[in-house]
Amino acid sequence: MTYIEKIKNFSDKNIRVLDKVRVITKKEEGFDGVLIPNSEEDGLVLKLSNGYNRFVEFKNVKKIELISRGEKIASIPSIKITRKKGLPNVVLIATGGTIGTHVDYKTGGVFMCRTPEQIIATVPRISKVVNIVRMLSPFTIASEDITPEQWQEIAGMVAREVNKKSVDSVIVTVGTDTMHYLSAALSFSLQKLSKPVAVVGAQRSPDRGSFDGSMNLLCAAHYCKSKIAEVATIMHGSSEDDYCLAIRGTKVRKMHSSRRDAFRPINDLPLAKIWPNGRIEILNQRYTRRSDSKTILKTGFSKVGLIKVFPGSNPEIMDWYIKKGYKGIIIEGTGLGHVPTGESSDKTKSFDKKLSWLPWVKKAVKKGVVVAITTQTIYGRVNPYVYRNLRLLNRAGAVFCEDMHPETALVKLAWLLANHEPSQAKELIKKNFAGEISEATINKAFLY
Amino acid sequence: MTYIEKIKNFSDKNIRVLDKVRVITKKEEGFDGVLIPNSEEDGLVLKLSNGYNRFVEFKNVKKIELISRGEKIASIPSIKITRKKGLPNVVLIATGGTIGTHVDYKTGGVFMCRTPEQIIATVPRISKVVNIVRMLSPFTIASEDITPEQWQEIAGMVAREVNKKSVDSVIVTVGTDTMHYLSAALSFSLQKLSKPVAVVGAQRSPDRGSFDGSMNLLCAAHYCKSKIAEVATIMHGSSEDDYCLAIRGTKVRKMHSSRRDAFRPINDLPLAKIWPNGRIEILNQRYTRRSDSKTILKTGFSKVGLIKVFPGSNPEIMDWYIKKGYKGIIIEGTGLGHVPTGESSDKTKSFDKKLSWLPWVKKAVKKGVVVAITTQTIYGRVNPYVYRNLRLLNRAGAVFCEDMHPETALVKLAWLLANHEPSQAKELIKKNFAGEISEATINKAFLY
Repeated sequence: MTYIEKIKNFSDKNIRVLDKVRVITKKEEGFDGVLIPNSEEDGLVLKLSNGYNRFVEFKNVKKIELISRGEKIASIPSIKITRKKGLPNVVLIATGGTIGTHVDYKTGGVFMCRTPEQIIATVPRISKVVNIVRMLSPFTIASEDITPEQWQEIAGMVAREVNKKSVDSVIVTVGTDTMHYLSAALSFSLQKLSKPVAVVGAQRSPDRGSFDGSMNLLCAAHYCKSKIAEVATIMHGSSEDDYCLAIRGTKVRKMHSSRRDAFRPINDLPLAKIWPNGRIEILNQRYTRRSDSKTILKTGFSKVGLIKVFPGSNPEIMDWYIKKGYKGIIIEGTGLGHVPTGESSDKTKSFDKKLSWLPWVKKAVKKGVVVAITTQTIYGRVNPYVYRNLRLLNRAGAVFCEDMHPETALVKLAWLLANHEPSQAKELIKKNFAGEISEATINKAFLY
Repeated sequence: MTYIEKIKNFSDKNIRVLDKVRVITKKEEGFDGVLIPNSEEDGLVLKLSNGYNRFVEFKNVKKIELISRGEKIASIPSIKITRKKGLPNVVLIATGGTIGTHVDYKTGGVFMCRTPEQIIATVPRISKVVNIVRMLSPFTIASEDITPEQWQEIAGMVAREVNKKSVDSVIVTVGTDTMHYLSAALSFSLQKLSKPVAVVGAQRSPDRGSFDGSMNLLCAAHYCKSKIAEVATIMHGSSEDDYCLAIRGTKVRKMHSSRRDAFRPINDLPLAKIWPNGRIEILNQRYTRRSDSKTILKTGFSKVGLIKVFPGSNPEIMDWYIKKGYKGIIIEGTGLGHVPTGESSDKTKSFDKKLSWLPWVKKAVKKGVVVAITTQTIYGRVNPYVYRNLRLLNRAGAVFCEDMHPETALVKLAWLLANHEPSQAKELIKKNFAGEISEATINKAFLY
């Protein structure tokens, strides 16, 4: 039975895809929305008025009422890309994610773009800013399914392209969920980077009025013309369509599940504000400038675990990572980098010694695992000296990651351990490779 | 050999505690600071000019130079607490942490307060606002060492006190590292709460000019006079000494490792702004008012794990929790609540099926473990309907935690599982018990 045949079971009207309908479920709930196709599951999908899709299993559907007929919408225009003299040459690497989707106006469904023309069609103005000379698409994967193996592949591709004389910069489009992990991975992998590398995504799909991908892409093109030779994410800076922020790849984090301005700098100022009309305001003077140097590809990522401690958390989990052959563990401690030790408990309370993390940190370190401390507060710096419990953790062999947020520390340690001996990696974690450690605390950066 | 005798090994001057010295280490680094006592470790502690303590192991010390002699400082004044008619009666429960410390001016060391008089001595003005009728100190533990067992003990104490006619409200002082976990635990444990409960700490110790504990405590006293019958943290609202924020116990998170205004509301507005002079501005009209109802103590916390997923993370870790007898697992997904599934990879890439979380979620659910989804973006709401990968996770049996941030979801699930069957707990996680779920999205709350 086809999708539409199944739909017809619940209505005497001849309901078609793109019709506006009311779906009444057995739980007595009703949903109004536009019926869109769904080939893979045993249920229907409605586009709700808030723009989100809502899936309803057929087994829960009681009745479907027709509200109004759907209109036919013109199909997506085809764009012919022409090269203009004097514009910088940009290579686009598309990897999937919401930004790499387009709406099929025949069916209302959202599909992955397969050609540069399809991506450019969402933002025709880009061809007045840069020449997209080539589009590469190594794979099409939603960002939650991207692994370090793919970071490596993208890094290799970017390195090859930026080292070509004919290329002025590179744009990478990717899903937003793990975009900040990728941007950190590229920042470390591309040593002595000589040209701008923009990492761009979209928080909203192209079938929504609030689609942000085209403006982000346009601002990324402007970033490509700048003199900032750093990996940076280019995403909405506010919830309006007014400007984007270029944020250093090692100091950026997705801080909201759905807002368009979800990407924020952590313990750092954004590199620049970029307006769709091409205006660029530098916000952070400490950036690397374009150069003629050769970009050196140094990539690879070892297995590193991430553990967030919490009241009553069981430190024995560290043993699982040791036994699985992990070469490093990032701990998200509390505050300045604390883990439970039991050492602060007064004599009236017996702290369950099994809850102290110190013996497990010592054991991991003894086995050659690098244990590195970050903070779950996200903002701020860890410090091994202020309190006695911190010093105990430091002396147990853990290394403190300054003001790197946990995700950047994770990517960096994985990268270091793939390229160095553990003892070296432990020292190098405190060395600045790609702007990931701020020397001084920037007050304005908090909740920027 | 005493501390001072060890110090003398490195200097020909007769160095004493509280002298200003320069410590030169074997690494050729020099530290200037005031020598303060340190009885427990094999090293010295300097109070640096930035207010932080710096520990230096004796084995690394090369030389100690005298800069200037320390002055004798008058000892802490003793405060006599008198009850004033007409002021509300407040019970103070002190549990440890930086706010519960005072400086011993004889030695320069920071010690835990043991009596109400000692805490009140740091903020004498409080006695003009409320009568501290009683101080209880169940234990003195730094907050990184507090466990759910202690949450339960504090909850029991608060319940007993608020149910007394003679008591108008309760202040709990605690270390800040896990203060937001405690405030959530109290919010859930004290059902039908009828009076204000203020949770207060300090980010800076009392020997520093920037000590925030006294103003926080004073504003907490003002909160005790208010009509807001909720558990709320009372901490600095800005980096100045101008006002505090009262933030609902289930919607607050420590967002900076060291700033005084580290406690911020997540997906919610603060309940109120409170100035030290007693002015209170309500910022959130949706709060519970004081009543005559009996506060019901419903407490207890089951073992619940917390896992943060990341690119390449190994889902087999879930099995560790299942085998250890955990009754619930909170997953910090990416974006709207994603975990790696491999379902989005195109045919050109073979996703390592071992990295899909779906089979492990199914296994956990089958074993009766409640698997609940939150987002590592901290801000925003998870949603099981928008993308196919989310629906697959939902259908694998995971429950989505709306706009609760991971720490509140963790405490809530632990609390539910201690008081209900798993199947009930799974339903109840989406029910609002203590303002932990916002019905509508509050735009102003992002990065507040």
